[in-house]
Amino acid sequence: MNDQKLKINGERLQESLEAFADFGRTERNGVTRLALSEEDRLARDYFRTCCEGIGLEVKVDDMGNQYAMLAGRENKPPVVMGSHLDSVKKGGRFDGVLGVAAGLEVMRTLVENNVTPAIPVVVMNVTNEEGARFEPSMMASGVLSGKFDKETMLAKKDEDGITFHEALQSIGYEGSIENRLTEAEAFLELHIEQGPILEKEQVSIGVVECVLGMVCYEIEVAGESDHAGTTPMSMRNDALFAAIDLMKEAREKLAALDDDLVYTIGRVSVLPNIHTVIPNKVIFSLEARHASTDVISEAEKIIRGMEASMQKAACDVSAKKLWGRDTVWFEPAICDAFEQSAVSLGYSHKRMVSGAGHDAQFIASYIPSAMIFVPSVNGKSHDEDELTSWEDCEKGVNVLLETVLSLI
Amino acid sequence: MNDQKLKINGERLQESLEAFADFGRTERNGVTRLALSEEDRLARDYFRTCCEGIGLEVKVDDMGNQYAMLAGRENKPPVVMGSHLDSVKKGGRFDGVLGVAAGLEVMRTLVENNVTPAIPVVVMNVTNEEGARFEPSMMASGVLSGKFDKETMLAKKDEDGITFHEALQSIGYEGSIENRLTEAEAFLELHIEQGPILEKEQVSIGVVECVLGMVCYEIEVAGESDHAGTTPMSMRNDALFAAIDLMKEAREKLAALDDDLVYTIGRVSVLPNIHTVIPNKVIFSLEARHASTDVISEAEKIIRGMEASMQKAACDVSAKKLWGRDTVWFEPAICDAFEQSAVSLGYSHKRMVSGAGHDAQFIASYIPSAMIFVPSVNGKSHDEDELTSWEDCEKGVNVLLETVLSLI
Repeated sequence: MNDQKLKINGERLQESLEAFADFGRTERNGVTRLALSEEDRLARDYFRTCCEGIGLEVKVDDMGNQYAMLAGRENKPPVVMGSHLDSVKKGGRFDGVLGVAAGLEVMRTLVENNVTPAIPVVVMNVTNEEGARFEPSMMASGVLSGKFDKETMLAKKDEDGITFHEALQSIGYEGSIENRLTEAEAFLELHIEQGPILEKEQVSIGVVECVLGMVCYEIEVAGESDHAGTTPMSMRNDALFAAIDLMKEAREKLAALDDDLVYTIGRVSVLPNIHTVIPNKVIFSLEARHASTDVISEAEKIIRGMEASMQKAACDVSAKKLWGRDTVWFEPAICDAFEQSAVSLGYSHKRMVSGAGHDAQFIASYIPSAMIFVPSVNGKSHDEDELTSWEDCEKGVNVLLETVLSLI
Repeated sequence: MNDQKLKINGERLQESLEAFADFGRTERNGVTRLALSEEDRLARDYFRTCCEGIGLEVKVDDMGNQYAMLAGRENKPPVVMGSHLDSVKKGGRFDGVLGVAAGLEVMRTLVENNVTPAIPVVVMNVTNEEGARFEPSMMASGVLSGKFDKETMLAKKDEDGITFHEALQSIGYEGSIENRLTEAEAFLELHIEQGPILEKEQVSIGVVECVLGMVCYEIEVAGESDHAGTTPMSMRNDALFAAIDLMKEAREKLAALDDDLVYTIGRVSVLPNIHTVIPNKVIFSLEARHASTDVISEAEKIIRGMEASMQKAACDVSAKKLWGRDTVWFEPAICDAFEQSAVSLGYSHKRMVSGAGHDAQFIASYIPSAMIFVPSVNGKSHDEDELTSWEDCEKGVNVLLETVLSLI
């Protein structure tokens, strides 16, 4: 091990993060930089200019993904660092962009130290991770990995009826299919945690072993609307009261299943939603995430069991599976490399899971991939209050650099 | 008692109810006849024409209330029958209009039988009971009884920005303040039950003793939004889970309070209402109705108690009283007269309460008033499926006739 470790320039990293944040900065110091918007175009241009400024070759593929390459001594599959520059509406200054700015900073460090890698190193900006303007999220990594059909994705429209393809062309970022990431030694994504664990446990680096599998159901409870003043309690068929019973029962059973299971009722619609009318319908989402397929199966049994548990009641209950995904396990060797880097740098670290989705989970299907997390203050993300300390950002990028050095 | 009782003409009653239903009839055989709309104007014109056709004098007051009078032998305060011709959007063919058509049918029966009453008899169409176009409901009876300020009411606007006053003028129904109902021997309102009790118990006539007092609260539960995938259950501050606990607790306590108490959570808003985000706020309405002031007080204690019961949890709870009203007791002598009429006609009957509001409850503040109900099939109202059998309508109007005869 080298005692005089190569380190990144924390100040320069901060400057480039602030420069990116200028493209769509909100009044409350967040960022709105929807995919393929004018702000996204400016951020992409800035990224390209910075990369070209240090001699990297920048290419764009047919989904608008940008690749900036530092050539290696051998023309072999590269080590790729990547994340995304797009944000949600009124999002934060770190989600996604940190991983791209990190890659840029690693490149700058390599170049200024005249490191010529054995194999190429690439920093990648993945188009439309958020899916905030054009659904679904992780669109471009989904196309690269064959999860999504390209033509279907190109035809996706935003609220104004503009297609993804039109928007891609209008900002001048429709490149060639030949430039796609097809093979690589490794795909490394540094990202903010978007959860409270690292901060709470005062750990700087999270080595992400997997992206949790999940199921999302929509449960519909149908009762009967009647006048709130004229219908005795015994003659009611109140969909909300039935739904409350169901939610509480499901919640208690899910809580007993496994301590690591997370489950959320995020969306609830009550109809007709008038204070003087007994609700005749309640529709709610219920999603559950866990690394183990078995635990997810058990959770699904509980969710599906709601239908049966209401047979005694007058309300009709139906549980419809909206979607599910299996747990994606990252490449153990890269996780080990990340961990080893953190150890060698003397940073606190822990193995953890990602409950949120990331481009790396799609890319992992054809390229050895892994992720590291840095702490999110109060666990906030997709919010203008999103914050990661400069110190933690710097540590994360140093781990990324160290890991890249170990792979090239 | 007269063995050859005067009876109304059931077929003619049915015809006039169908004629009224033509003014705003919907595809599904309901009615949309918002206050002061073109449909309301046509229904008013038809009512006036019918009344003038049998020699009644028709007047209009400054709130647009119509009065059709059959003169008595003495010029004394009249016996007034009344209800409303306006409906909610996609309402039924019976709510309100039944009481007006009933008054018309009673008048026709009196006139064709050459009954000259000792005191005048009036049938009244009260403007804007529903408040569906111009809030609040029971607007004109509220002004007559001094509950609402006339100028404030005239300035109320509909969705299109048209004021009540403009609409009243535009349909030609702004009359004189001198024509207002200021004193009367009695105010009698026949109405559909809008609840399931009479049908369920197979009773034809409900003698309404009171309109229930009620309180309506808005409860706000504030938690914290976090990512549904990345936030462990133990680190959450889920406003929905807290709200569910509160709703269930309040419901159980209210259920134990009194069998006749009715309570409803009709409106629920969950924020931000995204399936992948833990809710940070839930706002819900909770209303309770009962005849006894003491029971309502106890219910309020339970509702207010929610704030305290959540002090142990991380969420903030606030309960705001939106409004309340005291129970309005109808004139016992008129209730007795209604009951006696039902007995003399051999109709099944019961004493009951009204959970819904009616014009009679405001008018009761200055005129001896009471109501009778006829059955609503499945308890439906404010709905195109609203239905009362012609037989029940006829029985109700016969009770009204018999009661008017007992008072004149």
